[in-house]
Formats: sequence, structure tokens, C-alpha cells
Amino acid sequence: MPIYTAPTRDTRFVVNEMLDLASYGNLPGFEHATPDMIDTVINEAGKFCAEVLAPLNKSGDEEGCTRHEDGSVTTPKGFKEAFEQYRESGWGTISSPEEFGGQGMPHVLGFVVEEFMATSNQAFAMYPGLTTGAISALIAKGSDEQKATYLPKMIAAEWLGTMNLTEPHCGTDLGMIRTKAEPNGDGSYAITGTKIFISAGEHDLTENIIHLVLAKTPGAPDSTKGISLFVVPKFLVNDDGSLGDRNAVSCGSIEHKMGIHANSTCVLNYDGAKGWMVGEENKGLAAMFIMMNAARLGVGIQGLGQAEVAYQNAVAYALDRRQGRALTGPAEPEAKADPIFVHPDVRRMLMDAKAFTEGQRALCLWAALLVDLTHKAPTEEERAESDLILGLLTPVIKGYGTDKGYEVATNMQQVFGGHGYVEEWGMSQFVRDARITQIYEGTNGVQAMDLCGRKLAQNGGAGIQAFFKLVGEEIAAAKGDETLAPLAEALEKALAQHQAATMWFMQNAMANPNNLGAGAHNYMHIMGIVTLGYMWLRMAKVAKTALAGSPDDPAFYQAKLATARYYMDRYLPDAGALRRKLEAGSDSMMALGEEAFQTAA
Amino acid sequence: MPIYTAPTRDTRFVVNEMLDLASYGNLPGFEHATPDMIDTVINEAGKFCAEVLAPLNKSGDEEGCTRHEDGSVTTPKGFKEAFEQYRESGWGTISSPEEFGGQGMPHVLGFVVEEFMATSNQAFAMYPGLTTGAISALIAKGSDEQKATYLPKMIAAEWLGTMNLTEPHCGTDLGMIRTKAEPNGDGSYAITGTKIFISAGEHDLTENIIHLVLAKTPGAPDSTKGISLFVVPKFLVNDDGSLGDRNAVSCGSIEHKMGIHANSTCVLNYDGAKGWMVGEENKGLAAMFIMMNAARLGVGIQGLGQAEVAYQNAVAYALDRRQGRALTGPAEPEAKADPIFVHPDVRRMLMDAKAFTEGQRALCLWAALLVDLTHKAPTEEERAESDLILGLLTPVIKGYGTDKGYEVATNMQQVFGGHGYVEEWGMSQFVRDARITQIYEGTNGVQAMDLCGRKLAQNGGAGIQAFFKLVGEEIAAAKGDETLAPLAEALEKALAQHQAATMWFMQNAMANPNNLGAGAHNYMHIMGIVTLGYMWLRMAKVAKTALAGSPDDPAFYQAKLATARYYMDRYLPDAGALRRKLEAGSDSMMALGEEAFQTAA
Repeated sequence: MPIYTAPTRDTRFVVNEMLDLASYGNLPGFEHATPDMIDTVINEAGKFCAEVLAPLNKSGDEEGCTRHEDGSVTTPKGFKEAFEQYRESGWGTISSPEEFGGQGMPHVLGFVVEEFMATSNQAFAMYPGLTTGAISALIAKGSDEQKATYLPKMIAAEWLGTMNLTEPHCGTDLGMIRTKAEPNGDGSYAITGTKIFISAGEHDLTENIIHLVLAKTPGAPDSTKGISLFVVPKFLVNDDGSLGDRNAVSCGSIEHKMGIHANSTCVLNYDGAKGWMVGEENKGLAAMFIMMNAARLGVGIQGLGQAEVAYQNAVAYALDRRQGRALTGPAEPEAKADPIFVHPDVRRMLMDAKAFTEGQRALCLWAALLVDLTHKAPTEEERAESDLILGLLTPVIKGYGTDKGYEVATNMQQVFGGHGYVEEWGMSQFVRDARITQIYEGTNGVQAMDLCGRKLAQNGGAGIQAFFKLVGEEIAAAKGDETLAPLAEALEKALAQHQAATMWFMQNAMANPNNLGAGAHNYMHIMGIVTLGYMWLRMAKVAKTALAGSPDDPAFYQAKLATARYYMDRYLPDAGALRRKLEAGSDSMMALGEEAFQTAA
Repeated sequence: MPIYTAPTRDTRFVVNEMLDLASYGNLPGFEHATPDMIDTVINEAGKFCAEVLAPLNKSGDEEGCTRHEDGSVTTPKGFKEAFEQYRESGWGTISSPEEFGGQGMPHVLGFVVEEFMATSNQAFAMYPGLTTGAISALIAKGSDEQKATYLPKMIAAEWLGTMNLTEPHCGTDLGMIRTKAEPNGDGSYAITGTKIFISAGEHDLTENIIHLVLAKTPGAPDSTKGISLFVVPKFLVNDDGSLGDRNAVSCGSIEHKMGIHANSTCVLNYDGAKGWMVGEENKGLAAMFIMMNAARLGVGIQGLGQAEVAYQNAVAYALDRRQGRALTGPAEPEAKADPIFVHPDVRRMLMDAKAFTEGQRALCLWAALLVDLTHKAPTEEERAESDLILGLLTPVIKGYGTDKGYEVATNMQQVFGGHGYVEEWGMSQFVRDARITQIYEGTNGVQAMDLCGRKLAQNGGAGIQAFFKLVGEEIAAAKGDETLAPLAEALEKALAQHQAATMWFMQNAMANPNNLGAGAHNYMHIMGIVTLGYMWLRMAKVAKTALAGSPDDPAFYQAKLATARYYMDRYLPDAGALRRKLEAGSDSMMALGEEAFQTAA
């Protein structure tokens, strides 16, 4: 049985020491996040996830979900009971608004819970996980009546939500959707169409499911400017809040997937189902992006999650499994062989995982802070800058974070050798589950284009300039410190690559937009590398300061410094190679027509 | 249903034009490989694999193998009939020696068949695939009686073979095996122990299975110097060649794996099974390496195979699926959207796949030629150099080829977006099947150490110097040609990185062997990149020459030149980054002790 321990020490380090959450106590909601409360959330969430969710991960994968003839879906054994505990403990309410029954605490703490859940049981975490995006959309765009009807129940996890975008013929290109919404004349609409890949689309965890559905009203423009968002409950809700008639939405089938077997990925058929418009007609795309941005950050956390749990298991295996001898001579001469932990190639994979997971954790929690600062920072300037930087970071956290998360999960499977390939050990599941994170909520190619085609140019490049300034200032400050200077100097070179790549886009993308498309994925990875480097420099600074104060656990801080050094040694060099690839442009990439790709006999 | 077409045109290009197989007609066996025979083998093998094996790939994955209570194993529906056809067509005999019933043709043609089989159905290909290694070991080390008893039947595929190395507690570290071989006093031995991960260990395809088993005789040294190789038939063979008693070897269970479900991966229990020693006592490791080297080249071909079939399907999907518009304006304005083939990020993944599969094919077939030149080249010097270079290339073909093959298969799955994650489309199987290639027959970390710890230093570095000379000469020759010069100059820079990395090892590995271990994986990738670059330069030269002669299909040769350009643009830059990582040495990698890897609460 795979193991999982919530990384509570490292989480406290990021929350309390790196982000210094206490220093934001003057912001609304942050006053609830007292040091005691932070500790309690981290420890109790960690306990719940390790003790309740992790043990259901493998059995859930093996059993999967079952669709019955009547279209109902049963989740794997133990999921319903675990979900009861989740609801009763209020883990879903942490950073939801108080006016709808939430606890109103900073998103940093909500993200902590999301991470532990996604790590211990990704398929389980996705049931409430998709609800987060639906809640965000309703808060931002719903009518008062819609908010009152749905939000308290959804925040309390009595009802769960879904996001219905994709149809058989279109996922990325939402302008092509065919699902129709025809006015019933009473303010409601009749929704008809087929949606696919709907995570948690049907299940037995809650008495109601609230579907948020993109559809087209009659005569709507034939593009993304013609889509509207609708709320479509599985059971209609009576005026007194009780459940009424079963709505005409049903699960046609569940997909047989590579992983996340325990999450029911549904084909949903809407046969004139009753729905109500959320926000304005033909403005559905904006509402969709609210859901999507929340979901994308959630997926970035999942990339971290599967890397983390795979890493924990690989460490345990590497310390237990004995093969061969250390290159420098037997480490344990009395034993028949040394633990494989002594081999540099095993250590390389473990250090790579450690550097990624701790860096990505710091990044996700920093992004969570930005989510709040976007709304709550004291000055308009700070709010605007937070928004711009968060906008840039979102595709990086999702795209780079899941590309790297999958790579790390795969490497951790590699540590197990042949045993990693056998399902019994659980490593295969981590890889199979991680794989979806590069695909859903916009493939990583879409993330790269969101970053390079939309976010870079926003406000005349103000976001990326603010980002460069932030990183540059951190580097400048660190250069004056003997311990930090080598780290800062290494990061400075990678930052220069990032800046050069940005400049190359400015000079070459106008003349030929394919140059942007050809380099977008490279650029996203350069930015990921630099961003995690920035996180490592910040963590190193905190560690150095802490060590000066004779802390109780100096080894923890020394490990931070050593891992920062490893990061600079082994991650940063790729920035230069990626820049060179990017600067090759699109010529050789787009040179061949379709015939050249057909297999010739 | 996934598609597969054997890449016969590209294969003919490599065999006839790049390798110019006809020019070796003076070597023994090569005289059989007339242009007509080459064409026939390529076309008929391609047809067999596309028409018979490919259609069984997905159903085999879904059904898997079944172990019955009596320990017998049934392969998936259709496998037995397909195997009959394989045997009757004599595909296994192509490059086996004529004296044992083989056709004695060049290994290049045997590798062509291996590629098509591994691509169309990896799990099926592994049944005869493992036999190849067993045959090699018996040819090299078996007694005349053993050869006469087993080889004709194995070469004719009437019996299949296996390789039994791994035990529950040891895979890589074979010095620790516990399986015992006790003399029966009649020249035979009683073999007792448990072997795991035995591919094709039990099945219903042939009436007999010939196990080659590593075991220890009483009092043998407690290291790899104490292992011997035994041949242990499932059914004992009577003097007249008919089958006798069932031997005491049985399948205890079959593994539930991430992929290659249709290959029966067995736990084999030996309970005093009758076996005969192959070669000398305590010299089993050398015999094992003969099997292993054949198997490693076979696995490198599998890395190519899954990348190739995934690529073919991704191309078809990219031309069919419509989402969004080309960045340069609608490519097909009359349609609702353009095929995703127009998007640079999709093209990037397809070009990456094309550059890898064609390069790796050229490399594998060159290696096949070296297999023959090692034995058959006219001068001792040529034979020795071929052997040295083949020894260097083997871990690169296996290690780099499967790392990259898995990456390509994953990217091809990515082209499908959400549909790639659903098993129905078959892309998940390609990724799951490809994953094992990085693990078995020595993990890729083991390949890296074989390359850097053993092969680099052999004969005072004569092999790597010969390799550098070969590549350097190709570059020098190409620099005089206007078309080829830019390719050659790019490759020259990557070669310089390779040489610098080699030099760094020479200067830093003696003082601290961990510096070698820490950089071995980087080095293997640098060499992979340079080696495929060398293949691309050779292919570009052939294409350029062909174009000058007004060939029938100029587009084929133009595509070779364009893909060579892409390769130099987009693969070579990594060589520099990998060198920088390698030169960071082992300090930061090995800085932390095991406590630092334990998750702290």
C-alpha cells in the first residue's frame, strides 16, 4: 500500500516564513488566520487526507465508478463515507465568503487543503474540486436569487457542482458548441445537447448536482461571442429550498480512462433540461474564464500532488531496496548490498523531485496569496499588479507545473525499476493520474498560447515587466549576501534568457505570428524555470535568516539551502537551451505540408 | 481502432540508400540480400504486421493474458493464430544462421522485421523477441548437443525461449541471486528458486518453452563471479527430439502491469527442475550479457516502435480534428475551423516525433549492420572498431531511444487532447506500453552507467575516439557543401559539447566517482542527441545527392532535408544544457542525507 504523509512542516515554512501570512493581518478575512488557526488547518487537513483519503486512492483506482442502467453512478467503496467526513469537517468552506456560509479565510489556506487532497487522492479531490470553479462563477456572475439558491449548499458541500464546456466535436474551440438554450418564456431556458468529459458529472455523493453549462441562445453569433452560461440543477430547487423534480439531464456513459478511475467522467445528455442564465446573454465566455482560472490553478496543484506522493514513495523504496554498492565504496559493508539511495542516478531523480515539489508548493501558495491581493490589497496599484502577475502565473503553474509534475511522477516510478511497472505498488497509478493534468482545463499547448498570445501583451506588457522587476529586485538584494550571491548570480543568467526570449517575441511575432506559436511552449517552460528559481531564491533567503537565529531544526533550513543550490545547478541550464530553440522560430517547424507526414509505402 | 502502416519507403531509404546494403555483398550472408529480396522482406513483413498483428494490439491490451488454476496461461484471442502465421512465414529465421535452419541474411533485415512487429504489437513481438537473446546465448556458449537439441526448433519458432534473471530481491544486482543449481550426478542440475518478471514465461503459443536461467552452483562465490547459466526446458526433450516429461517449472502468477497486458509476465517457480549448464561454471554473467545486448537493442527498437505508431495516429487525428484557426489567418475559411495540424504547437510535437522516429530508425539499422560487421568485416581492425562502436551505441539506443520514445508517445497522446486520455482511442496504450522500455533489460540509469562506467573507458577510450572521428569526418565532408554546411556546423557545436563532457569526466571522475554517476544520464542524452544528429547529417547527404539526380519522389528527399534542419534547430540545443548540468558534478546532488528526504511533520 503506498504511503502518504502531509508535508506539514514544509507547508508551515511557506505559509508562515516565506509568505509571512501574519503580516497581512490587516486585510479583510486574514484576521481569522491567526497562527493557531493556520497550524490547526494545516495539521488537521493533513491528518484527514493522510488517514481518510489516501487509503482510498488505490482501491478507488481498482474499482472505478459504476454506471447503472438508470443512468445513476456509484462511486468506489468508501468514497461516500469519506465525503461525509469532508463535508462535516467543513474543509470546503475554508476560503469561501462568510456571507454564504464560508469561513472567509485566505485562499492560501484553501490551497493548502486542496494540495493535501489532490495529493492523497486526486480522483476524490476532483468531486469538490470542480465545485470551486462553479462557486467562483456564481459569486462573480450569478443573480442574487441564484446565489441564495445555490451558494450556501455548494459551499457547505451538500451539493456539488460541475463545469460543462466540451462537446464531442469541440473542446478548445468553444465557439463551435451546439448545445442550445431556448427560452421557456418564464425566465428559464430549455437546454438541449451533449456534453462530454464532465468530471464528477454524476455520482452518489450528494443529493443534488449543480451543472454550469455553456449553450447558445437562438440567433446567437456563431463564435465565442455567442455563448451563454446556464445553471442547470440535477434536481430542480423549490422556493423553500427543498428538492423538486428530476431535471432532464442524464449520464449517458462514463469514460474508460487511463487514470483517475475513481472520478466519474461523464457524457451528459441534456434533453430540454431546465436552466437559468448566469450573467448576461452571449457573455458566457467571461464567466467560463472565471471558472477556468480557478480550475487551472487547481490542476497546477494536482501536478504538484502526484509528484509529491510519488516522491514520498520513491524515497521510502530507495532507502529500503538494496542493489549494488556506492561508487565511492560500500556504504553498509556488513549488508549484502547498499540501499539504492546511494546511487547518484537515483539521488538525481529524488533531488529533482524535491526541488520541484517544494518549489511548486511555494509557487502555488504565493499564487493563492495573489488571488486575495487581487481583491483585497489596500491600493488599486497593488490590486492591479497582483492581478497581472497572477494572470501570467496561472498558465505557468498549470502548464509547466503539470509537465514537470508528470515527469517527476514518471521518474519516481523509475526509481522502483520493474516493480514500478506493476500496478501492485501504486506507482503506475500516480503516473496515470498525473497524465490528465497536462490535458484537461486547456491542454498545456493552450496554456502556452494563453501565456504568450494573451497574457504577455496585456496592458502593453505591464505584467511581465512587473514580474521581471520582482525577480530582479530579489536577485539584486541577494547578491550582497555571501551565501545567497551564487544562487542569485545563477538565477540572473536564467532571467536574462527569459528577457531575451521575451524580446525575441516582440521583434519576431508581429511579422509572423507562427514564430510566437512555435516558441510558446518553450517560453512557458523558460518562465516556469525562472519562476521556481525565484521561489528558491526567496526560500533560500528565509532559510539563511532562520539559520542565523539558531532554530530548533537547523537541518530543515540547511536542506533548503542545499536544494536551492541543486535547483540552480540542474534546472536553470535548460533556460538557455529553450531560448535557443525558441529563437529558431517557426521556419523549420512549419516547412512541411501534410503529405510529408503521411507514412509512405 | 488505431491505424498502422509499415514505413516501408523510409526503411528502403535507410537500407538501400543510407546504409547501401548492396555494397556489402562480398560479406558472408549478405549475398542473399539481393535488392529483390530486400524489397520482398520489407514489403511482406510490413504487410504481415499491418494486417495481422496491428489489429490484435488493442484487443490484446483489453483482454490480457489469463492464468488458469493448473498454472497454464492463455494468450489473448487471435494471438495463437497470428503466431502460426508468423512461424509459417519464417519471420523469425531471417538473420539466424543457416546451419540451424535460419536464412542467414544480414541483421539489418532482421531488425526491419523486429521494428514492424514491435510497432504494430509490442506485446506480441515480445514472445519471439526474447527468444532472440536466448538463441544468441546458445549459439555463443551452448554445447554442440545443446545447439542441436534447441536451436533448430527455436529458430523455426516451434519453441520459444525466455531469459530468467530477476528474483524478488534482486534485478540489477545479479550477484545476489538465490536460485540454486545442484548437480544430479548425470550431468544435469536440479534448479530451485523463484524468478520474477519473466516475459513470455508461460503461454499457449508453442508446445515447448526453453528457459535460460541464472543460478548458483553449490559453493559458488557470493557475487556475479558465482553465477552460471542453465537451459531448462518446460518439457524435457527425448533423444529423438520428441517431448518427454513436464519439467518442474511452473507459473505461479502473472503480473498486473501498467501496459503490455498481452504479454504474460510471469513469476516462475523452479522446484528442482532439470537443467543443463550453458558454457562454463561461474561464467554465467558473460553469457547473460550476450542475451542482454541483443535484448537491449530490441528494446531500443521498441522505443522507436511505440513512438512511430503513436505518431502515425496523431498525424491522422491532427489532419481530421478541427479546432480554432491558423495564427496566420484561416487555412480553410469555408470550414468552421481549421485542422489542428495548422497550429505550431501541434506541428512542433509532430515534427519532434518525425525527427526522432526517422533518426532512431536509421540508428537502429546502422547498429544492425555493425552487429554483422563485428563478426564479418574483412579486417580485424574493422571488426574491432565495429564492436567498440556497437558497444557504445547499445546503451544509447536503449537508454536515450526509450526515454525519447516515451516522450514522443506521450506528446502524440497530447495531440488528441482529452480523447488521448480515453482508452477507446488507443493512445493511452501506446504510452503505457512504451513506459516499460525505459525499465526492463536494465533501467535507463543502468544503461547510463554501462555507457559511462564501462564502455567509455574500454580500450583506453578507443571506442569513443573512433565515434568522434566518424562524426567529425562526416561534418568535415559536409562543410564543403552549400546545402549541408549549416547542418554540419550546428552538429559540430553539439559534438564539441559531447567532447567537452567526455573531457570533464576524464578530469573529474577519478577524484570522485560520484561525478561520473551524477552526470551519466546527462551524458547518455548528449550522446543520443549527437548520434541522431550524425544520422540526420548522413541522411541529409543522401537526400541531397538523390535530389541532384531528379528522383521520382523529390518530396520525400526534400522532407528529409527539412527534417534534418528541424533536428538541428530543436534537438541540438539540449546538448549544451546537459553538459552544463553534468559539469555541476555531484556536490549538490549528493549533499543531503536520508533525513532530508523524509517528509517532516
